[in-house]
Formats: sequence, structure tokens, C-alpha cells
Amino acid sequence: MHSNNDSKYFLNGILQKDRIILSKAITLVESTNKDDQKVAEELLQACLSLKKSSKRIAITGSPGAGKSTFINAFGKLLLDNNNSLAVLAIDPSSSKSKGSILGDKTRMEDLVGNNQCYIRPTASNNNLGGVARNTRAAIILCETYGFDYIFIETVGVGQSETMVKNMVDLFLLLLLPNSGDELQGIKRGIMEMADILLINKSEKENEITAKVAAVQVKRALHLQEASEKDWIPQVINISSINKIGFDELIKQVDAYFLKIESSGFLSFNRNQQDLFWLEENILEELKQTFADNKNVVHLKKKLEEKIIQKEISAVQAAKLLVEKFLEK
Amino acid sequence: MHSNNDSKYFLNGILQKDRIILSKAITLVESTNKDDQKVAEELLQACLSLKKSSKRIAITGSPGAGKSTFINAFGKLLLDNNNSLAVLAIDPSSSKSKGSILGDKTRMEDLVGNNQCYIRPTASNNNLGGVARNTRAAIILCETYGFDYIFIETVGVGQSETMVKNMVDLFLLLLLPNSGDELQGIKRGIMEMADILLINKSEKENEITAKVAAVQVKRALHLQEASEKDWIPQVINISSINKIGFDELIKQVDAYFLKIESSGFLSFNRNQQDLFWLEENILEELKQTFADNKNVVHLKKKLEEKIIQKEISAVQAAKLLVEKFLEK
Repeated sequence: MHSNNDSKYFLNGILQKDRIILSKAITLVESTNKDDQKVAEELLQACLSLKKSSKRIAITGSPGAGKSTFINAFGKLLLDNNNSLAVLAIDPSSSKSKGSILGDKTRMEDLVGNNQCYIRPTASNNNLGGVARNTRAAIILCETYGFDYIFIETVGVGQSETMVKNMVDLFLLLLLPNSGDELQGIKRGIMEMADILLINKSEKENEITAKVAAVQVKRALHLQEASEKDWIPQVINISSINKIGFDELIKQVDAYFLKIESSGFLSFNRNQQDLFWLEENILEELKQTFADNKNVVHLKKKLEEKIIQKEISAVQAAKLLVEKFLEK
Repeated sequence: MHSNNDSKYFLNGILQKDRIILSKAITLVESTNKDDQKVAEELLQACLSLKKSSKRIAITGSPGAGKSTFINAFGKLLLDNNNSLAVLAIDPSSSKSKGSILGDKTRMEDLVGNNQCYIRPTASNNNLGGVARNTRAAIILCETYGFDYIFIETVGVGQSETMVKNMVDLFLLLLLPNSGDELQGIKRGIMEMADILLINKSEKENEITAKVAAVQVKRALHLQEASEKDWIPQVINISSINKIGFDELIKQVDAYFLKIESSGFLSFNRNQQDLFWLEENILEELKQTFADNKNVVHLKKKLEEKIIQKEISAVQAAKLLVEKFLEK
């Protein structure tokens, strides 16, 4: 019998597929309490060494693209085929207009209550670095639990996509059946990340615009250089409501995983991602250690005053502060 | 007589409105050479202490919104009113599809060759931190030269707007006269930054869609909380080609600066921006110092190997590396 400040308590619970303990463990890894963090690190280390693995899929798209309804439809298909599924949602909303990802669970009615499906939003009152660390930890915990698929849901705003791209094996992008400028420009960088692009809401009544949109997206993608993983991004017209295009989607998802598993890209990519996160974590750690350093506090106040008086540039002040920070 | 590795040479040249020396000075501050950087720091410090000031205006919008043509028309009006103008362009394009900001100077035909106007792209083969530092330095140099207005032109992709927002007094956003979803969602965060929103290409033949778009933008903005600077974002229909809406634009720009100057928001905001950049520069400096530290190289290689073997998490490895880095 282990107490709940013991990493073994969490590990055993997760391995026994105890969902309440899984939820507690995710809360633990999100905690900023030093003692909790120590237990969380032990737990994550133990989970990592088990080397369990799920298919990690990012699902993104701008607000209104129909992510929740799509996740409900796609998730249900996977569950019907005897797969288990975890849905992790990230919401790094703008500071002014608070978003509401997963606010409307009614759109995931076929998933909520299914005992093969687990839905969990990532705590979002946090910086992007914190959200990334928490989501990565939640993925590891869910893999240890043994889910076949893990969805990472995120809203379409530049920064969070780059973050999520570095956590998943497959990147799904939902687009609306609008044509023209919207497909170019602002979403361009995000489109380039996608392995499968879905023109959602391709119902009968939108048939023509939806097909035109698909052609435009394909054309835009043709301008891209060949990807290192030897996969041509697929564009599929779907309707989450009328269940159109899902056979093709499942076929492409399977083909994608088959390809990246057999070519070795899957594990190569995960290693690259781990090394990417090492760099990110080093930065976070440097930032935190600097913020906690009492030696620089006084100098920082003085230099801030000097900056405002235009007696020193921010660049110079930063140099002096880091020198002080590193003083032996 | 000063040599050109002397900061006084650059300062004197800039104060004498020598544009060739201004260009050389911007190249100097962009240099990664240590000796150049030392001269650049002296120069920037000397410029800062002169406390000269221009009206700093960000001009942004997605590709195709017509930024160059707009800058040409707006810039010409300012020049005709006996103002001088510097246009600094930032292009943090996606790594895959290289953008081409200012690639087409033919669209700025009324500015190129005008001796009251100076156009300069910021070196973009650099990370965002580097681009920010270089652009901030170029702003200071241009202010010392004595330009009345400085435009910072950037392409509409999330991260660069946040950066530019923290460099300017006034944020202008160009939108296309499209209605519907495009105005919501992905551009939302950027729309919230704008002080003046321009529905560009509001020519006669687009009149109705352009007016509808303006109404939709206004409606979307009404959902915002009141801004700390007591300014209601203005939405104006313009046509750069047919010179529609520019009287109103000039009127609003003047009203805006009058307001933020008299309320003290202008200097308050610049101080806040300087403190924001202090934090950013500290981070850059920490990153650079860590990268240059020879003590951690060996340990980092070892830990990268362990990460790939799943023997340690990226979070744990980062902690160990920062400990080593700070070892006395």
C-alpha cells in the first residue's frame, strides 16, 4: 500500500487503468508545489522507462471550424473499432478574449461517458512553456495507461500549433469550405505543418465551394518542398454531421502510420521532438532560476530606473544582469 | 575626423542627416561581430541619451492586403505635408515559404527616390529575438536622424505582431473587404492589438462588401474590454489606389497622437515597452551565455543520448544542465 505522495501509488493506479488516479496524476504533474513536482518527476521517469506508445494526433483549426463535432465523430469511429482514446485539449487563448475549448462537451456526446474514452483539458492559466510541459507530461501518463490514440486539440493561433507539432506523430488541420484569400496568407504556416487537411462542413449544400476549397488547398500545398518523411499531405472533404469522408480519413490515417512506422520516421521524429523539448526546457529552467535569484533583484530595480531615464539600453542592462547572475 | 570603427563617426553622420552613414550604422547594429557590437552599443547609448522621438507606427496585415500600396499612398501624404518618413520592414517568413516583403519596391514608387523618405528592410535570416533587437536599434537610429514618422511594416503572422506591438505607439491593421469567418478567429488576437483598422480595397466596385466588413469588424471590436489608453479603435474604409478614406485616416492618426501625448500614455507605454524588452533581452542573453559555455557541452551530449534511450526526461535533463551551467 502506497500513500498518494508516492510515485508508485500513481504508477500502479495508472497501470491498473484507474481513471481517477490518472486524473490525479495529471493534476500532480500540473502542480507548481515543489514536493508535488518531485513526485511527478519520479512518476514520469518511471512511465518513460516503460516505453509504452500511443498514436499521437494533433487536431487543430480556427474557432468555428467544428473541432469538437469532428472529434466526436472521428473519436466514435475509433471507439467503435475497439480502440481506446484520450482527448487532451490545450487552450492558450488570447489574454483579452478568453476562449472556451471543451467548454461545450455537449458536442462530444458520443465520447463523454464511453469508458474507453478519456477527456481532459490542460490547465491554461499558465504561460505557453508551462502548458507545453504539462501537455507533454499528460501524454506520457496517457500512454502509460495504454490508450491506443491520443488527440491533442488546440485552437488555431500560430504559437500553439508550433508547440503541438512538436508533440505529435500526425497533424490534422480542419478548414472551412471558404475559398480565396483565407486559405493563403495567415494560415499558410499552419497549413504547411499539416499531414492531413480536412475541408470540414462539406455537406451537400456546400458541395461546390467545398470542392473548390479542396482544389485551392491542394494547389497551395503543391508549392511546398517535398517533406522529409516522404508523405504527400492529403486533402479530404468531410462532413462531421453527415459522416461524409470518414472512411477515406481512417484509410489515410492508417496509411500514414504504416508508412512512418516502417520507414523509421516515427521514432526518428519522436527523438527529434525530445531534443527540441530539451532546448525549450533549458530555456524555461534558465528563466526560472534567474527569476528566483535574489542577488539580481536589487540591480534589476536600479537598471529598470536607468532604462526609463534613457541612461542605459535594455540590451546593455540585460548583459549586466546576466553577468551579475553568473558571478562566482 | 573619426574612423568608421568609432561610434562618434556614426553619431555625427546621423546627426548631419547623412543617409549613407545611417545605412552603415543599421548594418553595424545588425552585425554579429563582437567588435562591431561594442561600437554599436556605444552608438545606441549615445543616441538614447539624446532622447529624440518620432511617431512610431506599425503597419500590418496578411499577404495580399495591400500593405506596400497603402504605405506608398499614406507615406506620400505625410511627405506632401512636409514630414519626413522612415519605413522599416520586418519579414519573419515561414521557414518553408520564403516571403518577399519589400521585394516589390515598384509599389512604393512615390517614396523611393524622395529625399525625405528612407526605406530599409531588417535582415531576416535571423531568429525572432535577433530581428526584434535589430529593429529596435534601427528605430533608435532613425529617431536620432530626426524622422517625423517611422513605419514598421510586418506581415500578418501571430508572433511578429506581438513583437511589433511592443515597439510602436500606434498599431494600424489592414484588412481585406471579405466578410464572415475570416474576420473572426485566427486574426482575432491581432485585431485586438489594432488602434486603427483599415478595410483596404474599398473601391466603388467593392463598396457593399467593404461596408459590411467594416460593420462586422466594429461589432467584433465591441466585444472587447475598454482599453487602458482610453481610445476606441477606429475602423475606416480606404482605397489606396483611389485615395479614398485618407483624410479620415490622417484625422484619426492626429487625434490618436494628440490623445496619448496629452494623457501621458505615450511615454508610459514606451517605458512599459522598454521594460518588456529588458525581460526579452535577459532571456536572449541567458540563452546565448548558456550556448557559449564549454562546461556543459559534454554533459549535454551525454544527456541527449539518455533522453533518446528514455532513461531521463527532457525536463530532468534540462535541470541537470542548468545546475552544471551555474556551478561555482
